[in-house]
Amino acid sequence: MTDMSKKDSNSRLEEGDDHTGHAAPTDQAAQALAQSLPRTLSPKTLLDLDAALAELKEFANPTLQTEQASTFDVDNRVLREPLLSLLNVPAHDNSAMDGYAISLEDLNARLPLKVTQRIPAGTHGKPIRAGEAARIFTGAPVPVGASAVVAQEDCTALDSDFVQLNSPAQSGQSIRRAGEDIARGVVVVEDGTRLNPASLGIAASLGFGELCVSRVPKVALFSTGDELVMPGDIHPDQMDMGKIYNSNRFFLKALLKRAGCLVTDLGNIADNFEQTKSALQMAAQDHDLILTSGGVSVGEEDHIKPSVIALGVLHQWALNIKPGKPFAYGRINRPQVSRPAENTGDTMHKSGYAHFMGLPGNPVSSYMTFMLLVQPFLAYLQGQKKVQYRHTPMRANFDWPRADGRREFLRVRQNDQGYLDLFDNQSSGVLSSVVWGDGVVDNPPNTAIKRGEWVNFIAFESWLK
Amino acid sequence: MTDMSKKDSNSRLEEGDDHTGHAAPTDQAAQALAQSLPRTLSPKTLLDLDAALAELKEFANPTLQTEQASTFDVDNRVLREPLLSLLNVPAHDNSAMDGYAISLEDLNARLPLKVTQRIPAGTHGKPIRAGEAARIFTGAPVPVGASAVVAQEDCTALDSDFVQLNSPAQSGQSIRRAGEDIARGVVVVEDGTRLNPASLGIAASLGFGELCVSRVPKVALFSTGDELVMPGDIHPDQMDMGKIYNSNRFFLKALLKRAGCLVTDLGNIADNFEQTKSALQMAAQDHDLILTSGGVSVGEEDHIKPSVIALGVLHQWALNIKPGKPFAYGRINRPQVSRPAENTGDTMHKSGYAHFMGLPGNPVSSYMTFMLLVQPFLAYLQGQKKVQYRHTPMRANFDWPRADGRREFLRVRQNDQGYLDLFDNQSSGVLSSVVWGDGVVDNPPNTAIKRGEWVNFIAFESWLK
Repeated sequence: MTDMSKKDSNSRLEEGDDHTGHAAPTDQAAQALAQSLPRTLSPKTLLDLDAALAELKEFANPTLQTEQASTFDVDNRVLREPLLSLLNVPAHDNSAMDGYAISLEDLNARLPLKVTQRIPAGTHGKPIRAGEAARIFTGAPVPVGASAVVAQEDCTALDSDFVQLNSPAQSGQSIRRAGEDIARGVVVVEDGTRLNPASLGIAASLGFGELCVSRVPKVALFSTGDELVMPGDIHPDQMDMGKIYNSNRFFLKALLKRAGCLVTDLGNIADNFEQTKSALQMAAQDHDLILTSGGVSVGEEDHIKPSVIALGVLHQWALNIKPGKPFAYGRINRPQVSRPAENTGDTMHKSGYAHFMGLPGNPVSSYMTFMLLVQPFLAYLQGQKKVQYRHTPMRANFDWPRADGRREFLRVRQNDQGYLDLFDNQSSGVLSSVVWGDGVVDNPPNTAIKRGEWVNFIAFESWLK
Repeated sequence: MTDMSKKDSNSRLEEGDDHTGHAAPTDQAAQALAQSLPRTLSPKTLLDLDAALAELKEFANPTLQTEQASTFDVDNRVLREPLLSLLNVPAHDNSAMDGYAISLEDLNARLPLKVTQRIPAGTHGKPIRAGEAARIFTGAPVPVGASAVVAQEDCTALDSDFVQLNSPAQSGQSIRRAGEDIARGVVVVEDGTRLNPASLGIAASLGFGELCVSRVPKVALFSTGDELVMPGDIHPDQMDMGKIYNSNRFFLKALLKRAGCLVTDLGNIADNFEQTKSALQMAAQDHDLILTSGGVSVGEEDHIKPSVIALGVLHQWALNIKPGKPFAYGRINRPQVSRPAENTGDTMHKSGYAHFMGLPGNPVSSYMTFMLLVQPFLAYLQGQKKVQYRHTPMRANFDWPRADGRREFLRVRQNDQGYLDLFDNQSSGVLSSVVWGDGVVDNPPNTAIKRGEWVNFIAFESWLK
């Protein structure tokens, strides 16, 4: 009896989280599985998300090679050198106003000053002396000898040759100093920053036609599951019992592209061990990461796990998060390198294996584990230094009385009052909650939420850049 | 004297906002310009941003044609039909737990029930009768005659043939009803929605291999300004006085790509009227929008404005926003259509002209007007129904004592306490504030801000999807 209930409880945990429509194993097989369950399946030893991320950060070493690429082409890529300004912005002390440049001696001038020159932007003036003023325009370099610019509204032009200050001026007034915005030698964008349109703009404004960035990660995408049908292949009315449409490959491909990857969609993985092994080994040859969904739960019968184990190494994790408990990280050795082992040095690490990540088959779990684990891993792989989601404190417009032992990511949406509404079905196997919501509440383990309380909100947008 | 001060005041307004390093016009020319200034330059008649957006929404009609495209390829494109579910999700009444399906008669059964069948997910069971139980697994369809599922932890398996309920069951218990997640006939994604990875996933899960979307907008990008040097062409140390690196084309190209456009970068526009006209007319031929930066201020001498006027129609706006006051919208007639006029019907509108938008040359103004005006316009052009930025109420960690008459977009960054820090130089001509910040405070006209007050925050991320 004891064995039986143990098995059932464990298998329920798995199937509830990662239901892909697979036929459940026979009771005998399940019993055998239950008896061989690793300790990590016990709720007490679920792996913490932050610990998992720390491990993944380690696994992402060495990072991808770098390359020089046109500043035009490196949006959303990771800068791999500090961007040092080689110039001052502005380049010269220049006028912040349209007005008149005057010398130190004339800051308190009561007599009219003679306007001896005119300095539009883009031109140099000649030095000015006491008793002289230079008509000057915004952005124009202040002439040698000038100590202040007096805005045109603070003086009176007597005729085109003379100007009278309305009140005394201060030394340095209305002069923008060379390097005030960006000083020569300053780091403007740090090594390991993910570039965006504005940072490309600033790099260009400093004269950088090319930047040193990580090369684009190459990712092979597989799905697994006999029950999966490609949309378009069979009309909804003709779907057989137990068959479902493959949706994971669609959002995973799009998410990978948004994460800046080159994606090879390798379709549904073959249904026998030798073919699976061969497909994974082929993919490992010229991809940095092989990503699969489905087949990572303990209860599931598939050929991916044994294939990865046969080809390299596999860590199967049970994570302390909901949704998305089961997760696998592994490495698949590349065939052309003769039996590379782990930790045999940098060269081996760079060329010896492809990374492997296995996501749960349940679409919501698959989506969330991508966001929480795969995207940060890809960022680390590209040498991104700061990888974090933006938590925004917001107030709950809902009650969440059922505190869960795992760290939950509840799908929510901001309402017009700036509060968070909760999607009513958090356990849904379909992506409705993710489509409806605009983010998640990152809710610590064993934490109930009362309406009006402050919670940690993460916008999907902060992930989908 | 009165004329003089008027001219100066107007020209200062322009140059302060749109300083591109152009040589200022001669005093005489400036005076002539000042006298011909349109009324909209008076602070009282600055155009409201919302009014401008309403006009742009009108101008975006008719929207772009639609096309059928693979669900794999339509991330970030706009859906142009309501996505109607043709199936129920789940497809059948099914078990929410691993357990035992029982009949209505046995909800209160005290005697053991005979386990007559086993129903894994993906298989159909046979009908059950009173006195019988079906071993059933999560996701498996409940058999005909079943009224409830009792979770395995709520009953006792006596041996493999009999099970005993631990307590009475409720009718319908642990049964997920067909269509509970998504009912057949329901609109899952609305017409005019911008698709994201999750919505592609849900479309695929409902069997849609293709979707009806707007075709990709084609945008031609020009910059203007003799002072502009391409990064990489001249080393920072060799830059001539008054020359600056072109940065706008870099961030505008990246922003256009993120907005889902196909971009043709046509470089710096020619420096005479005939060549400018011819370049614009060529670009109009096969682009939906021609975007330029620089040359929209009243004080600037360039050939773009007269060219657009000669080729179609031009609206020059002075917007009540800061940064980013000057902005132009126009239309350039396509040469192959014989003299199409405005408002001559649908066919003409579709084929008769390309849209034109002119942004200020100042990088920060250019960036912000892209975000505030061009991106919404492109969304409208693609038939997107809801185009709005997400305002999040947050607290200022700064004082902003100088209330401005215009609606300001202050570059800020969230700090670790969840408050907003202000970038110290809000008037910078370089993009430092946009690179440093992670969003803006949308500050209404004439509004000072005190530390600790609530303000409207817009994350750049909510724009950069």
